[in-house]
Amino acid sequence: MHDTPFNGRAPSAIPVTAYNASDLQNEINNFLLGQIYVFDDPLTQQSPPESPTFGRAQGTYSFVSREEFVAYVSYTVTIQTGKYKGSTLNILGANPNAKPIKTCAIAGGTGHFILARGILTSQVLNLFGPFNASATLINHATIYLD
Amino acid sequence: MHDTPFNGRAPSAIPVTAYNASDLQNEINNFLLGQIYVFDDPLTQQSPPESPTFGRAQGTYSFVSREEFVAYVSYTVTIQTGKYKGSTLNILGANPNAKPIKTCAIAGGTGHFILARGILTSQVLNLFGPFNASATLINHATIYLD
Amino acid sequence: MHDTPFNGRAPSAIPVTAYNASDLQNEINNFLLGQIYVFDDPLTQQSPPESPTFGRAQGTYSFVSREEFVAYVSYTVTIQTGKYKGSTLNILGANPNAKPIKTCAIAGGTGHFILARGILTSQVLNLFGPFNASATLINHATIYLD
Repeated sequence: MHDTPFNGRAPSAIPVTAYNASDLQNEINNFLLGQIYVFDDPLTQQSPPESPTFGRAQGTYSFVSREEFVAYVSYTVTIQTGKYKGSTLNILGANPNAKPIKTCAIAGGTGHFILARGILTSQVLNLFGPFNASATLINHATIYLD
Repeated sequence: MHDTPFNGRAPSAIPVTAYNASDLQNEINNFLLGQIYVFDDPLTQQSPPESPTFGRAQGTYSFVSREEFVAYVSYTVTIQTGKYKGSTLNILGANPNAKPIKTCAIAGGTGHFILARGILTSQVLNLFGPFNASATLINHATIYLD
Repeated sequence: MHDTPFNGRAPSAIPVTAYNASDLQNEINNFLLGQIYVFDDPLTQQSPPESPTFGRAQGTYSFVSREEFVAYVSYTVTIQTGKYKGSTLNILGANPNAKPIKTCAIAGGTGHFILARGILTSQVLNLFGPFNASATLINHATIYLD
């Protein structure tokens, strides 16, 4: 999963809220509390961004803490190739950016993943770009379908 | 389900993000990536909007793709009449607008729908209004309660 | 759970959408339809705000009705102390502010709460501050883990 909010004319994530207005309200807000991003991140089979894409992660993440960077995520994973083509999983959760392994919940799915529950763990492989904000994430889903 | 973002002084869905700012960042963004709508759509028993209302669908949808119109939805269905009055279902999912039958996941509920899982399928019956953006949707929920 | 949107320089909830723009579209919108708040609310063991904190509720709530105050919530509860430290629960739902006991669905969790389903009920203990908008909520979670 490749999240590139600072990618020139084609970022994969866009901040959409009136952050400046929020900032004025708080005067001191170092951790972007109140900023919501909408994202469309490609999922690739291996970690290089040019590796074949097999799906998308699409939804929102919001910064939800005054004390550290914590992203509340709400999104859908859609598989676009292979056996599970067209199936989806929904992901919900909040994790501090500083946590080495992030864990979110799987909250339902469609197609092969109907009734899915479980967890999705994410590990940041590398950070790059301005502010070290762009990231490649290695995700692993544990899915229960009964 | 009647979604009428272009309904003069009483739209059922309102765009709330600073789309123009996002647009500037992207320069070319034909599919509204970054635009979040908040909606309060009536649910009627038959397809005409004047048919009796039995509930509301209330939450957000966000456009989450640069390549086509894809709406990520996150909302609650509240039943307001009959046997299931006061019960709710939560819906999550992402679907391209162009897909004839859209499928979302049911992620929990309350009242009669406690512990609910399942899927909600939606079919667009007709599009009308400016930009053909307003829609009547026929929804069908398959609910598992065990 | 303490929600204090009007707390001077350190509010626990921040309105982030261009409400004025939405308002203009609607001309009459007394119930904030379209306003999204991002929040970081402390969870305390007893109701006084100075009672020991055992976790956070972090996410968003959006006003989703033109006819009454209805908040659509989407957030994660993270336990920060004791046996369940690091475990999380996701909460989804919509409730009129006027409803005495609000009920939301639990949509998955992590750690001890993996596969969690159930409901979360909330009762407003008191309202205070400008517009009586800040609130202390007593929450009770019924969690199913099988």
